[in-house]
Amino acid sequence: MEQFLEKAKSASRVLATMSGSKRNQILREMAEALRANTMSIMENNALDMRRAEEENLTSSLKERLLLDEKRIEAMAVAIEEIAALKDPIGRVLDGWVTEAGLKIEKVSIPIGVIGIIYESRPNVTSDTAALCFKSSNGCVLKGGKEAESSNAVIADVLQAVLVRNNLPKELIALLPDASREGVAKLIKMDKYVDLIVPRGGEGLIRYVSQNSSVPVVKHDKGLCHTYIDKEANIENAIAIALNAKVQRPGVCNAMETLLIDSAIAKEILPLLKEAFDREHTQLKGCDLTRKVIDIAVATEEDFDTEYLANILNIRIVDGVDGAISHIVRFGSGHSEAIITESITTAEQFMDAIDAAAVYVNASTRFTDGGAFGFGAEVGISTNKLHARGPMGVEGLTTYKYKVYGKGQIR
Amino acid sequence: MEQFLEKAKSASRVLATMSGSKRNQILREMAEALRANTMSIMENNALDMRRAEEENLTSSLKERLLLDEKRIEAMAVAIEEIAALKDPIGRVLDGWVTEAGLKIEKVSIPIGVIGIIYESRPNVTSDTAALCFKSSNGCVLKGGKEAESSNAVIADVLQAVLVRNNLPKELIALLPDASREGVAKLIKMDKYVDLIVPRGGEGLIRYVSQNSSVPVVKHDKGLCHTYIDKEANIENAIAIALNAKVQRPGVCNAMETLLIDSAIAKEILPLLKEAFDREHTQLKGCDLTRKVIDIAVATEEDFDTEYLANILNIRIVDGVDGAISHIVRFGSGHSEAIITESITTAEQFMDAIDAAAVYVNASTRFTDGGAFGFGAEVGISTNKLHARGPMGVEGLTTYKYKVYGKGQIR
Repeated sequence: MEQFLEKAKSASRVLATMSGSKRNQILREMAEALRANTMSIMENNALDMRRAEEENLTSSLKERLLLDEKRIEAMAVAIEEIAALKDPIGRVLDGWVTEAGLKIEKVSIPIGVIGIIYESRPNVTSDTAALCFKSSNGCVLKGGKEAESSNAVIADVLQAVLVRNNLPKELIALLPDASREGVAKLIKMDKYVDLIVPRGGEGLIRYVSQNSSVPVVKHDKGLCHTYIDKEANIENAIAIALNAKVQRPGVCNAMETLLIDSAIAKEILPLLKEAFDREHTQLKGCDLTRKVIDIAVATEEDFDTEYLANILNIRIVDGVDGAISHIVRFGSGHSEAIITESITTAEQFMDAIDAAAVYVNASTRFTDGGAFGFGAEVGISTNKLHARGPMGVEGLTTYKYKVYGKGQIR
Repeated sequence: MEQFLEKAKSASRVLATMSGSKRNQILREMAEALRANTMSIMENNALDMRRAEEENLTSSLKERLLLDEKRIEAMAVAIEEIAALKDPIGRVLDGWVTEAGLKIEKVSIPIGVIGIIYESRPNVTSDTAALCFKSSNGCVLKGGKEAESSNAVIADVLQAVLVRNNLPKELIALLPDASREGVAKLIKMDKYVDLIVPRGGEGLIRYVSQNSSVPVVKHDKGLCHTYIDKEANIENAIAIALNAKVQRPGVCNAMETLLIDSAIAKEILPLLKEAFDREHTQLKGCDLTRKVIDIAVATEEDFDTEYLANILNIRIVDGVDGAISHIVRFGSGHSEAIITESITTAEQFMDAIDAAAVYVNASTRFTDGGAFGFGAEVGISTNKLHARGPMGVEGLTTYKYKVYGKGQIR
């Protein structure tokens, strides 16, 4: 493992000085290579699908695993879109002249080698490999066991393009030991690996964060709230609450708990119940809520649960202060929204709440790289440091200071 | 410990919405309070000094421990300078409108609670407390055992100012259990502590980085190089090399190894030897170097050593490529310099070398917050992520996205 990672590290240095146009050309070749190898990718994917069948994986897992011509074309297009992004490397982020007359430039550079641990969807293999290559980073990929054959053939196709361009194939490497022990070793190799991005279940993410000596950018849970203030536009409020819950309940930026200002609870709760009933949302409420509408009870544990399903907690709170207290206690720092026409209340909420994204009068569902306008997305970071919230290709860069002197000494 | 840290965490929330002018006023009161308590600080420092005497601490340790009127005044002035810095909180770092018409602002905010682990110098207590307060962060301080009484009285003085301003004293907290076990617990408390900054010996830093589940900004070793290219201005080269080694050999940005282009070795080595002999620098050289000047031998281990002393390795290399290879192998990613008049060679070196600061024609000694113009310095980070190189008060901030909608849903 150590030898393998040492190779990946030294391979990554080759990229540090490669021009952006060359990197983009190679990315476009990778997209073409995926298209040209559609048949062989589908054949290998069939092996994974057959095993999934034998092992009785759930139909949703199988659905995620499947690669057909349309999905492989989408993978190729995704790489072309990444090639078309602005070069994240070599940007002058800041610059000034010091008192001693040194000219300092703060310049964006690659991070080095990035380890990515993920599950099921094989398109993540080509997406993340392309994002890392675009940002001049080497990558070590550790996909799910269930997608082994698919990931192997995708990596082969991309590596062949590297080799054809006289680049070391270790720039896009699959972790040789994909077992639990392999991951345990990988996250201690801070000498060779500069960043770990775990994408997957809560257990994996907790394990990696607790044990990694390599810095970790987590993509953790989202326990998101929407607070409807007494000064809300009621029509907006209902539309936004509905959208935040039901448009795609299984994702991290969906709402789990709706907070209602006690001053408008009686007026708005029946309207909300009507709207959510139409969407077959399972509603749970606090005692005060249940005095107004007839729904199940929401316990403390419910308020602490990321359902990832069409289930919603409702709680009546005492104005914006009550909403802030609830969110401080139960929020996961992902996305939080207030619906109000009062600019003072909106700013109070947005300043007090510590989350990657705080919204006024919009759905929390907008927290992602695409909606933010970042183009392809590495993920949605729940870290507070390095990268927070939607993480575009810039999240795969760091910086150095270039200092230009003419003989200065201290 | 957990209860204590929970208090520190909830105290830190008070600061998130406090205005910059209020924070600055409190900082100036803290400076005044240090001045007003000079006698009592000196009395408590005397207890530490007496214990240092009894325990036979080295004179350099005792020198660092001592607080006299002048040093306490300097601590007060340092806080006033921190108060005068531009507010790092609430800066709009970026802003745009998305396709859906959402207005997004990326705004700097405090990190939360910062744990700082350090040794000897008691002025670090007031400096870091002030830096954290300036940036609206709570802090948990863990100073050295040898400075226990001094740190306690300094924290008391600062906390009294907090209390007088109706703020929780836990905003500036001393770790209650200052033992090894206390530190071990602290670095696992990611629920309450958002960042750990270890400042101290290599052992401490390695222990914290390997075991912390809280993100760590390291202030690790600096194994810095200067490469003199064949196209160097010889006079500049000698002055810069001399400065990088002897001006203050005990700091992390001092040079440990001097690399010489083989094309000018015969010409420059005798001049260098003369200059360094005058400064009583102990010289060690590679075999090729020792054919030109008569000095001790430098082993592989020497090239891998941060001397922090007036000792210098010299190695002859084959041009800039040889210099880059040596630095890739032995460099610590801190500060690296090239002396050359060739812009092409300079840029090749600066692009290829991955270090926090890369210099052309200047001494590596400039890598610090003061010389960079950042004002007060948290330290010099050897991390690649979050903060790299000289770390000013901006390094104690993160950001959130404030998103302004008018009813947008997806």
